[in-house]
This record gives sequence, C-alpha cells and structure tokens, in this order.
Amino acid sequence: MAIRSATTNRQFRLAARPVGLPKSSDWSFVNEPVGAPREGELLVKLRYISLDPAMRGWMNEGRSYVRPVELGQVMRAAGVGEVIESRNEAFPTGAYVVGTFGVQEYAVSDGTAVYRVDPNLAPPPKFLSVLGLTGLTAYFGLLDIGRPEPGQTVVVSAACGAVGQIVGQIAKIKGCRAVGIAGGPEKCRYVVDELGFDAAVDYKREDVRDALRTHCPDRIDVYFDNVGGEILDTALTLLARHARIVLCGAISQYNETGPRHGPANYMALLVDRARMEGFLVFDFFSRYPEAIGDMAGWMAEGRLRSREDIVSGIETFPDALLRLFRGENFGKLMLEV
Amino acid sequence: MAIRSATTNRQFRLAARPVGLPKSSDWSFVNEPVGAPREGELLVKLRYISLDPAMRGWMNEGRSYVRPVELGQVMRAAGVGEVIESRNEAFPTGAYVVGTFGVQEYAVSDGTAVYRVDPNLAPPPKFLSVLGLTGLTAYFGLLDIGRPEPGQTVVVSAACGAVGQIVGQIAKIKGCRAVGIAGGPEKCRYVVDELGFDAAVDYKREDVRDALRTHCPDRIDVYFDNVGGEILDTALTLLARHARIVLCGAISQYNETGPRHGPANYMALLVDRARMEGFLVFDFFSRYPEAIGDMAGWMAEGRLRSREDIVSGIETFPDALLRLFRGENFGKLMLEV
Repeated sequence: MAIRSATTNRQFRLAARPVGLPKSSDWSFVNEPVGAPREGELLVKLRYISLDPAMRGWMNEGRSYVRPVELGQVMRAAGVGEVIESRNEAFPTGAYVVGTFGVQEYAVSDGTAVYRVDPNLAPPPKFLSVLGLTGLTAYFGLLDIGRPEPGQTVVVSAACGAVGQIVGQIAKIKGCRAVGIAGGPEKCRYVVDELGFDAAVDYKREDVRDALRTHCPDRIDVYFDNVGGEILDTALTLLARHARIVLCGAISQYNETGPRHGPANYMALLVDRARMEGFLVFDFFSRYPEAIGDMAGWMAEGRLRSREDIVSGIETFPDALLRLFRGENFGKLMLEV
Repeated sequence: MAIRSATTNRQFRLAARPVGLPKSSDWSFVNEPVGAPREGELLVKLRYISLDPAMRGWMNEGRSYVRPVELGQVMRAAGVGEVIESRNEAFPTGAYVVGTFGVQEYAVSDGTAVYRVDPNLAPPPKFLSVLGLTGLTAYFGLLDIGRPEPGQTVVVSAACGAVGQIVGQIAKIKGCRAVGIAGGPEKCRYVVDELGFDAAVDYKREDVRDALRTHCPDRIDVYFDNVGGEILDTALTLLARHARIVLCGAISQYNETGPRHGPANYMALLVDRARMEGFLVFDFFSRYPEAIGDMAGWMAEGRLRSREDIVSGIETFPDALLRLFRGENFGKLMLEV
C-alpha cells in the first residue's frame, strides 16, 4: 500500500493507428494511480519490457492471431518484473514473473498467461530473450517447422536480431551449417566470431544472392525468414530440393503503406518441391518446459549465448521501438524500467 | 518397314523462345522420315498427345525441374500410342504405351519412362487423363501434400481443368466439402451437377472472395492451386488454421512478360499457421500403381469421372495449346493424331 500511494504509474497508451512507422503522436504518455489488486490478482513492478516487431501488427485493425490493441488501451508488451503485492497464492510477493504486462511501470494482473521465473538461474533480461518467447520462437520455428538435419544448410535473416541469433546457434548445435544475413560489418562479425555461425552476409554491402551462392554451395535446406521482402525473394531462388522456409516475420513489410510485396519467386516452391510455413510460438505452449530445459542446458554448457540491447527509461519507448524497424538493435531489444 | 517407307512423320519443333503467349512463328512444322528403331528401341505411332500448362515452362531457358526444350528439338509432350515396330521385348508390336513421345506422329524410344497400358481397361484418352500423370498429379497433390481430413473444406482452382476435376472428386470420396473455382456457368454447372462438387465459383462473373466466404463457412483447409495470381491471393485471406496450400501450377503467370505477381497476402500463412508447398508427381513414381489402382477402382464404382477435350489433327497444335491459357478447354486437353 505504501508503494501504491507514494507513486504513479507511467504508461504508454495507443492514441492513433499509425500509418507507416509509428510516430510520437500515435502515443499518449500518461500518469495513472498504481492499481490495487483485488482477490486473485497481483501487482507487478516491471523491470524490463520486451520490444518486438510483432507490436507493430498489434497496432493495426483487422484479423490477426491476436486482437488489435484498442485506441486508448495501454500498449501490449511482454515484460518481466517483481510481484510487490499479491492476492494470488501462485504468485507471492517477491516472486519474479513474466507476462503480457504492457508498456507501463506497474501492472495489475489476474495471473492469466503469467509464469514465475527463477532470478537465480539467469539475470532477468534473459527471461525476455533466450529463455523467453524469443528463444522459444527460435527453438520451435527452427526445429519443428524447419526440421533441419545434420549437415544441412540453415540460413537466417535478421541474424543478429533477437530470434535470429538463437536460430543460428541451435542450427550449429544440431550439426548444421549456419549462415546469417545481417546489416553491417559489426553484426556480421559478431554472429561469426562470437556466436559461431559459419558465415554471414552483409545485406547492406553485398549482393545477397551472390554471397549466399558462395556460402551455401549445396543451396539452402532451411531458410528462417524474419524480414520478408527482397531477401525472401532471393532465398527462394537458392532452395535445395525439399527445402523448408520458416515464416517467422516480415519486418521489411510491417510499415509499408503501399501494396505489400509478395514473394514473386514463390513458384520455386514447386520446382524445388519446397514448403513455406508459418507458425506461432503460442501453439507450442505445452512444450515450453522441454524447450527451456534444452536451452538452459546449452547455455550452461556455453554453447548458446545471447546479447540483449537494453535501453533505459520507459519514457524512451516510442523512439526505442523504432530502432527495430531501422535495424539498429543489436540483439534482443528491451526497455529497462 | 512398310509403314516407315510409306509415310513421313509430321512434327512440331521449337523454333524460338516465346515472349508471352507462344505464337505460330515460335514453331516449325516439319516432315521427317519415320525413324528406324535400333536394338532395344521401339517405334510408336501416336494416338493422342497430351497438352499441358507445364509445356509453357519447358519452352523457357533457365533452371527448372526438367531441362528446357532446346531450339530445334521436337516439342516435349506426353502421349499414348501403339507400338508398330519393336526391338525391345518389354514393348511388343501391338502394345499400347504411354511416354514422353513429343508433338509428332511417330516416335522412336529406348523405353525410358515408357509404360504399357491395357486398352481394354479404358479408352486410350483416359491414360492421359484420370489414369495418367494428370490423375496422379491430382491424387498425390491432394492426398500427400494437402492431407485433407473428412469434414474439411477443399477448394480447387481451374476446377474444370484436367487436374482440378479429379481433385474435387477425390476430395468428395475422402469425405470433404469440395468447392471449385472455374470460368463460366457451363463449367460451374458441370463440376456441381456432373462431378458432385458441393459448390462452384464463377471467377468471371462473381466476386471470388465473397463467393468463397459463402461456400466455405468454416474457411479453407486445403487450397489446391492451379492458377496463381489474384485467386491465390484471395484464397490466402480465407485460410483455416493449419491450412495447406498445394502448389500445382500458376497458369495465370506462365505467359507474363512483366514482373511476376507474388502472393502479397502470404503472411496469412503466419497468422493462420498454414503451409504452402510445391510438389512434382514424378517424386511419387514408386507409388503410381497404388494410385492407379485406387482411381481405377473409383472409376469402376462410378465415383470418379473425367471429361476429355479432344482436338483433332496434329496440325492444330499451336492453336490448341493456346486454349489452355485462354481457359477455353473443358477437361483434359489433348490432340488426336
């Protein structure tokens, strides 16, 4: 009660549906009283808020895999924080929890889709990256949709992004050749030298098709796509027979205001008897423990690393989010509250 | 020997690589002496020549699932005919055979990829349609790639075409709802009244999206695509969760001279956790007997019918082929030699 009366809760609410890149006037930054948990609820003080490309889609109207954020609502976001007051036995005061708490400093939750994490196992940011939905997305997308076999070639775009860096490392753990596509020499150097990818292609400086031909002499068995657009179209021209394209995202298209760019070379799927398939990590909910167990084990063995790109201050949210769409983040982007 | 000396072999050879729709100057129509089979070879007198959309692709240069037809070569085509002279024990004189014999009246073959058929089982044209590669394409594409389950909704484009009519009937046999897309009231009436589809959409007269919404109240579980272009893009907006798109062809795109039209709505594959997959019937070679057995059985039970669109005279080939791309054929198109 002392906390609630002493402070206000700063929040970002959706003020307008963006056209193209979200701008500052699409948000309202408001102060609200910290909410009081009712029976069954808990009050969370957020520590880190996850910034994800998918947030751009949630701001649009129309059918998708989740309902859009309504105008005036607190912007949806995943986060990790500490329970500071609880009327829910599953989440006692002092526990660390992960949930969809929104872009705000404090959240009241009824516990739906909230889970506890052990802060002694890893620093809190890791629970939004490799040990969170990001890591789970990489794990199930690569292994269940991509189904790579030892010796095959896995290519991942946005290789230095939150999901991409995990995809390439799991590919290596599974005995594959891993080739990343990233923007700029620093990111390319990082995925090869620090994360152990076999090669990286700098899409800002290289001809992507020529570079992929060089680094994928047996063509591409699994292409894990985070970007869409021209890079997807290029990958389609280099598929191995029975290749799998894993559709995880299309960040190049999320802020397009004109017609969307469909993959003109999609008929390569026929020539190469290949498959393009989308997935959502939520469909694998029952298998999260298996995946987290695998990944925590690989981390402990030093075979799986992750880098987080942490921006301080909730007030930086509108600008920080744009870093995703400019390709400026280096690893998993999040706000420290 | 009498036959060979008495007659010449009229052939269509590829004279130029077409730009857009093939025109008459892309062909040379020549007379050659009938060839003499050497040891291990057979001489076939063609009865029917199969005309297929895929032939347009074989006329282009560039990487595909088979080598392009070279300039000056006899145009590649499947056909059924009678062995009139043989130096290959597997194919005695008088046998009926199916093979890739080309657009010509007589063919010499070494027997590669040639198989015998029983003309007492069905009239020869059926061996190029429902009991040939056309039927096998429908069978494996629908059942192995589309994997429909009883009660699910299967939509097929070019529903009155060679493959489409078989796809819809197999879908019905497997307990699915079958909805066809075809051009014109006569074709739509045919697939519903004669073939037993549950509904048909006339893409020339109806808003395809509205009509599909009406006829697919539970959305689309399997979309079997023969056409590409706008109809594929529309189908993508109506997928059920975990839907499968079977890529069999893209006839709307084969003669495009401008940029190809990629499916702009492909990200529906992510929202709906769906899959788009290409296939080639040749990959199922070892299972042809199983499929032909199933289909012959369904034909005998009166549950599987097919209509052939037979054009007389090899000299009509250049015009007859264009009927495919104008959507004028009604059922499997072939030439009677």
